[in-house]
Amino acid sequence: MTDLVVALDVGGTGMKCALVRPDGTAVHTERHPTGAGRGPAAVVDTILAVAEGLADRARTEGHTPVAVGIAVPGVVDEAAGVAVWSANVGFRDVPLRDLAAARLGVPAALGHDVRAGGLAEARLGAGRDAGHVLFVAIGTGIAAAHIVGGSAATGAHGAAGEIGHILVRPDGPRCGCGRPGCLEAVASAAAIGRRYTELAAAASLDGGRLNGGPAGGAVTAAEVAARAAAGEELAGRVWREAIEAIADGLATGQALFDVETVVVGGGLAQAGTQLLDPLRATLHERMTFHREPRLVAAALGDEAGCLGAALLALDGMPALNS
Amino acid sequence: MTDLVVALDVGGTGMKCALVRPDGTAVHTERHPTGAGRGPAAVVDTILAVAEGLADRARTEGHTPVAVGIAVPGVVDEAAGVAVWSANVGFRDVPLRDLAAARLGVPAALGHDVRAGGLAEARLGAGRDAGHVLFVAIGTGIAAAHIVGGSAATGAHGAAGEIGHILVRPDGPRCGCGRPGCLEAVASAAAIGRRYTELAAAASLDGGRLNGGPAGGAVTAAEVAARAAAGEELAGRVWREAIEAIADGLATGQALFDVETVVVGGGLAQAGTQLLDPLRATLHERMTFHREPRLVAAALGDEAGCLGAALLALDGMPALNS
Repeated sequence: MTDLVVALDVGGTGMKCALVRPDGTAVHTERHPTGAGRGPAAVVDTILAVAEGLADRARTEGHTPVAVGIAVPGVVDEAAGVAVWSANVGFRDVPLRDLAAARLGVPAALGHDVRAGGLAEARLGAGRDAGHVLFVAIGTGIAAAHIVGGSAATGAHGAAGEIGHILVRPDGPRCGCGRPGCLEAVASAAAIGRRYTELAAAASLDGGRLNGGPAGGAVTAAEVAARAAAGEELAGRVWREAIEAIADGLATGQALFDVETVVVGGGLAQAGTQLLDPLRATLHERMTFHREPRLVAAALGDEAGCLGAALLALDGMPALNS
Repeated sequence: MTDLVVALDVGGTGMKCALVRPDGTAVHTERHPTGAGRGPAAVVDTILAVAEGLADRARTEGHTPVAVGIAVPGVVDEAAGVAVWSANVGFRDVPLRDLAAARLGVPAALGHDVRAGGLAEARLGAGRDAGHVLFVAIGTGIAAAHIVGGSAATGAHGAAGEIGHILVRPDGPRCGCGRPGCLEAVASAAAIGRRYTELAAAASLDGGRLNGGPAGGAVTAAEVAARAAAGEELAGRVWREAIEAIADGLATGQALFDVETVVVGGGLAQAGTQLLDPLRATLHERMTFHREPRLVAAALGDEAGCLGAALLALDGMPALNS
């Protein structure tokens, strides 16, 4: 019989869910659609039902569900346990921590998805030997978590770590946030696909010089990476420019945070060495007075947020039976 | 009879020194030249002699010197008490904390000048009602300190807070650190004076259209501010461009740190509302998803670093007689 934590990482499209032991290993995982289109009240119902189902499963298998940890995107007030704001799930001031604690009858913790993922990478994953870690998740958007001594900085209002919205290209494309030249507008997976698609279309208009270009429709960042690896010039240029912008963002992060290890996660990190090797070299060029951080790929994949939610719940507990 | 802390803030040209009560008030202050040109060994001798002189004065006046705090510029390993590196004082791995403790026979603390200044502003000065403060010192250079819950973040290697070296203008002038477009290269007091001097010289070559321009020689940022206030067009433009770059840097800081209060200090802050009012408006334009921080001028002037050094020393002490 083991104490287990019920852990959920709620994203815009899906939820990653697990039963996690006090040492941070998941003994069971499951996934559910978020169904954000149904509205925030329905999403909250699903979260609570899934959490209860996991707690029931733990009991059925002879274990004890001792806590529940939930990670959500957007602005999260961790101290109050409130999902303050989320564009893609629709939360507005939802007291998710107290709702989960009441439903499951165990202590609950609420965290921010990227900060929870960073916490897990810093304590269990690619940053586990470093006291100061910057976790950067590069996917549809770009966000970061700064973890010192095993705790992620939340900021005064639950909005710290928004590295996607630092200025890197004053003359660059306008970001979804409204400002021009944000890192996310230049170098997120979405921005890379968009940029390539635009340039390829322009090249086609310009005499159709492009070989193997898109036959209409948008190209994903993964496709840009594949074409760049295959030697296509335009894809190579778009990939390189994105890496330069990411390196500028990481250099700014290092100037301000001075970490030992930068952990790169999110969908774009699936490009592996095709991202990490040139990014490391480009970041190295930008290090002058800085102490150069170790740059590594995330180790926990897309379960990091879920494991981090479990860690947040565990941090609020006394010693457990493992 | 009062317990007093001996406090020194060692700069490139001068040292600000004080005897400080446990409540953070200075009961005596004095200043000495650093004499950096004499080399780091001579500077260390002066620091220790001045500190000893202050301890003697405390005793002569019937008080007890209970600790010594020293703030220095550059890279500082606060945990080890070592001045790792400083361009303008010449320190290379100087164990200043232990040298001071041995010389004065009391516990000692070593801190970074800007982090110490930020600590004092956050606990005693303009940020004293906020739990999350970003202190930004704008002078010959630009540097910052992030203070949460009364402690300044040091980073993994004592190099956190280098907001002067974040990229704001990729096409901008080259920074002393070697990279193009750093905030410090665009908007420090030195950069403002340099930019104005260059543009004024170019305007003179271009037909001498400049009224009241410099009669040769460099113009200081204070003079640029005065000319801008008097309505001179070129000075107004240079001042405005610097404020825009500073606002970009502060917006990046807010995206990453999410503080309640930004405290602006350093020589440029002496421009008062001529800096703060347009800076606040320009920062406001850049706040999209961010929670907008309160932007205030530093309250402790150039004694902040010295008071912060005293706070660092006090933080290492048990309760004192005040």
